[in-house]
Amino acid sequence: MPRFFVNKNNIIDNHIIINGGDALHIGRSLRMKIGDELVLCYEKIDYKTKILSISDSEVYCEILSNAPTDAEPDIELTLYQAVPKLDKLELITQKAVELGAVKIVPVITSRCISRPNKKSFAKKKERLNKIALEAAKQSNRGIIPEILDIIDFKTAVSQLSKHDFSFVCYEKGGIPFTSVVNASDFKNKSVGLFIGSEGGFEESEIEICGKTGIKIISMGKRILRCETAPISAVSIIMALSGNM
Amino acid sequence: MPRFFVNKNNIIDNHIIINGGDALHIGRSLRMKIGDELVLCYEKIDYKTKILSISDSEVYCEILSNAPTDAEPDIELTLYQAVPKLDKLELITQKAVELGAVKIVPVITSRCISRPNKKSFAKKKERLNKIALEAAKQSNRGIIPEILDIIDFKTAVSQLSKHDFSFVCYEKGGIPFTSVVNASDFKNKSVGLFIGSEGGFEESEIEICGKTGIKIISMGKRILRCETAPISAVSIIMALSGNM
Repeated sequence: MPRFFVNKNNIIDNHIIINGGDALHIGRSLRMKIGDELVLCYEKIDYKTKILSISDSEVYCEILSNAPTDAEPDIELTLYQAVPKLDKLELITQKAVELGAVKIVPVITSRCISRPNKKSFAKKKERLNKIALEAAKQSNRGIIPEILDIIDFKTAVSQLSKHDFSFVCYEKGGIPFTSVVNASDFKNKSVGLFIGSEGGFEESEIEICGKTGIKIISMGKRILRCETAPISAVSIIMALSGNM
Repeated sequence: MPRFFVNKNNIIDNHIIINGGDALHIGRSLRMKIGDELVLCYEKIDYKTKILSISDSEVYCEILSNAPTDAEPDIELTLYQAVPKLDKLELITQKAVELGAVKIVPVITSRCISRPNKKSFAKKKERLNKIALEAAKQSNRGIIPEILDIIDFKTAVSQLSKHDFSFVCYEKGGIPFTSVVNASDFKNKSVGLFIGSEGGFEESEIEICGKTGIKIISMGKRILRCETAPISAVSIIMALSGNM
């Protein structure tokens, strides 16, 4: 059944109104008609609805039933990603969303080669948020994960330390995810995951992470590219926490 | 220290000869000289060597010591990948090699949209093997994983059933990897992993896999793209088997 994300203000009592591109898409591309059913999702709730009226600009639906989106993981994983070359950030965004991350926070660390500032990143952020939306639709997520503004290393460490669990992946040492992630402790918890850019992290950065209580994680002896590490780490955390 | 793969016939007693592009690269790009050390790898053994003579066409090295390549996992994972659009197969190849797969076998299944035959795949295979070589170098692998010829579904199932453990990932059900993969049982074992193409598998294909003893695996409720599933599955198997 077709599935679309809606906003809070699209839901009015027992009805949901769809406007804009989605309305056009439902009528023109999907050729849906009055009486057809579709799933509309807002904040981890899937609303099963029936179309009551349809035009190119508006689809008006009646809510038949609702249920929590069952594809949504029971952990809230935020990926803090040291900014790589920007095409890699697109791949990372798409995959992190598919795999269940709720937020992606780009971070400038010592070894970042690409160092956009907040202003120069604005247009890119717009594109990344579009990629996140498409990935959320495709993977049946219950929310649209957001790409936040770029922050610096110090701010990232401070934010990471506020999660229930936080990890930084380091190629020169650390403990494996299998020794720290498990389904019983992680249920309904927030997880912060910090991944380096092309050059990895400076030793001094890892020391600061360690002192702040962020667990230092080794992903084995094979050197992973900076876009492989987050895809792999999110997969492993989701599996070990019982979400895959 | 720079690191290159060599063949068996390059190793003569206590010396290793490097020819071709690598020799040129060592002299010209890396500007290495007589007395410099480099690591040469053949079949999961890293040879620490010293350069005795160097020209554009040949570098002659003395073996100082050798040790097993410590980046090599202790399982032999073969990825049977139903053929997706070919650019996706490049990404899958690169990532599967980084993450530790030893072989990649392209398979034609019912729902494959891209259906090259052995002949039309030959050129592509050459390119994929180059990608595998680069990924093996970059990730410090101890072997160069190989991309094999395309096989059909029936042959894939037959080959999968010969591994010590074999899995097929299915989006409509199955058990999680966490319930079947562990470090103690998997050490030194061969693992076959079967992943679908864009359209996934037919129910009838999954039935055949199940009857042949291939374990049916669910990777959770989020629908993963066909290139995300193998990257994610190889990561999870490597982590759970103690190789990440």
